Amino acid sequence: MSIRTPLCDLFDIEHPVLLAPMARVSGGALAAAVSRAGGLGLIGGGYGSADWLEHEFEAAGDARVGVGFITWSLARQSYLLDLTLERAPVALMLSFGDFQPFLPRIRGGKTKFIVQVQTLDQAREAVDAGVDAIVAQGTEAGGHGGARATLPFVPAVVDIAKEIPVIAAGGIADGRGLAAALALGASGVLCGTGFFASDESLASDNAKQTAVSGSGDDTERSSIFDIARGLNWPPDWNNRAMRNSFTQQWSEDIEGLRQNLAEEQVRFEAAWTADDTDIAAVIVGEAADLIRAIEPAQATLHRMISQAEGRLRRIRRIVEPNSKG
Amino acid sequence: MSIRTPLCDLFDIEHPVLLAPMARVSGGALAAAVSRAGGLGLIGGGYGSADWLEHEFEAAGDARVGVGFITWSLARQSYLLDLTLERAPVALMLSFGDFQPFLPRIRGGKTKFIVQVQTLDQAREAVDAGVDAIVAQGTEAGGHGGARATLPFVPAVVDIAKEIPVIAAGGIADGRGLAAALALGASGVLCGTGFFASDESLASDNAKQTAVSGSGDDTERSSIFDIARGLNWPPDWNNRAMRNSFTQQWSEDIEGLRQNLAEEQVRFEAAWTADDTDIAAVIVGEAADLIRAIEPAQATLHRMISQAEGRLRRIRRIVEPNSKG
Repeated sequence: MSIRTPLCDLFDIEHPVLLAPMARVSGGALAAAVSRAGGLGLIGGGYGSADWLEHEFEAAGDARVGVGFITWSLARQSYLLDLTLERAPVALMLSFGDFQPFLPRIRGGKTKFIVQVQTLDQAREAVDAGVDAIVAQGTEAGGHGGARATLPFVPAVVDIAKEIPVIAAGGIADGRGLAAALALGASGVLCGTGFFASDESLASDNAKQTAVSGSGDDTERSSIFDIARGLNWPPDWNNRAMRNSFTQQWSEDIEGLRQNLAEEQVRFEAAWTADDTDIAAVIVGEAADLIRAIEPAQATLHRMISQAEGRLRRIRRIVEPNSKG
Repeated sequence: MSIRTPLCDLFDIEHPVLLAPMARVSGGALAAAVSRAGGLGLIGGGYGSADWLEHEFEAAGDARVGVGFITWSLARQSYLLDLTLERAPVALMLSFGDFQPFLPRIRGGKTKFIVQVQTLDQAREAVDAGVDAIVAQGTEAGGHGGARATLPFVPAVVDIAKEIPVIAAGGIADGRGLAAALALGASGVLCGTGFFASDESLASDNAKQTAVSGSGDDTERSSIFDIARGLNWPPDWNNRAMRNSFTQQWSEDIEGLRQNLAEEQVRFEAAWTADDTDIAAVIVGEAADLIRAIEPAQATLHRMISQAEGRLRRIRRIVEPNSKG
């Protein structure tokens, strides 16, 4: 069982599959599980505190992991970057904001630098900065993202990136998506939704169950959960999550939500604490259709690899009908 | 040069590539060019008149072509269906609306029946109706469409469709997209943007040039062009086109457009007549990044096939590093 790409050499990993650094979901245990299964787990630095981050590094144990940050949030608490670089993670990924101010502190160490992009201009900037890898993220991704869709976006970024490996993200949760990403010219994939319901994920059991039984048709992009969480996200990005009674009430009435913000924030926080997913956000993407069980991350990753191999072998017979492969 | 799938047998064609029936763009000449190059061209019935349709059938000459209609529009002028079935096209494709009332008239003839879907519920309905093929269309497509993105949507539809061939649409304009679609489990692709700038396309030279020099980053989904054209589209679907001064003025102010509709319709129609693409719509999708020349449709299609073959051969070496293929 083997699919080797330049990404495997870059990170010294067996399979070209990365865990997306999902805030509050991708903790040390999940990142370690993905890394031990042969991929690369990224801890979701999110809006996290130093304590939380230390705790998750400890939870990862001796596994080789990386970390991902929300760039504009990191700019407000940049000591998290120092704390992270002291741990010498395999990779650091920045998304959503201006990564340039952080470059000098990252350069020169052993940590590989990944930038996630949602537009071609962002891709050009990452190439010019000489990053080690670029994640091209499509709008079908769960959580924060932009407007471009993975399938046409990835090859457009590949054409810009030239020798820099491109990692496809958004909508990929099984071996078919991995095989498709490779066909598009990506060197690997970054998966969030695919590991959201893993045993090792920090998501609640209820959230995992909601994700597993949900459909991509039932997700939408919106700003309402950010508003309800008091997160002042820049307008360039919004958040894909499952529809529920909270989205039904407010998605078409952002002004109404703002006018009732004080009480809605209380209601939302209470729902989050009570794990009431009819109000709290279940942050997964369109790939929800493709996840069907709560299981160890290793099982998901190994099935993904063997399914991708199977697809690529089968396609070989489409191209060369006389092949016995 | 050969990529054979069940779709090739279904339509008796050489390459599993269909021309999307783009209204006002996919006329008989373009449909015939795609069919003669080994794919299957679909004439865009659109909102067309009987005269227009007859004219385009004549323009297709003796080429084997199909026809696509906007279902809710066809329901208002269903004599177009009789006129079409008399011509015994290879395939009839219906999109955007309730196809069930048309089924009895289509069944039993030689014409294959294709339904295009944008949600999994629509896919289930098409499977239950026993259609001959399903187009799973992603939101990155140009023109009208829904909210799901191609990469995660296609495998989810494949899982529902079982033995019915699934055709991927949205964001596919080169061989990488075709190879990715096959990896996802599709039996072929339907391409609009990829052929928009073909020599044989009915789009104006100015629109073709705008599309070729544009980027997927510069497209957006909106209802404003439909409103400006006086087309009463159901709210389930909107239209992806290039951004221009008209979208900048009205996309965030639909109410303003409605309030100024009389004069804006006049302005829009005048721009359309004058081929002023800064106001009139250039209806292409995110795959605009991947089209780079105004050229014969045959050149586009044959490059797509050979690029897909090349990608799939290269990936084989990723899976089996010792292969000499």
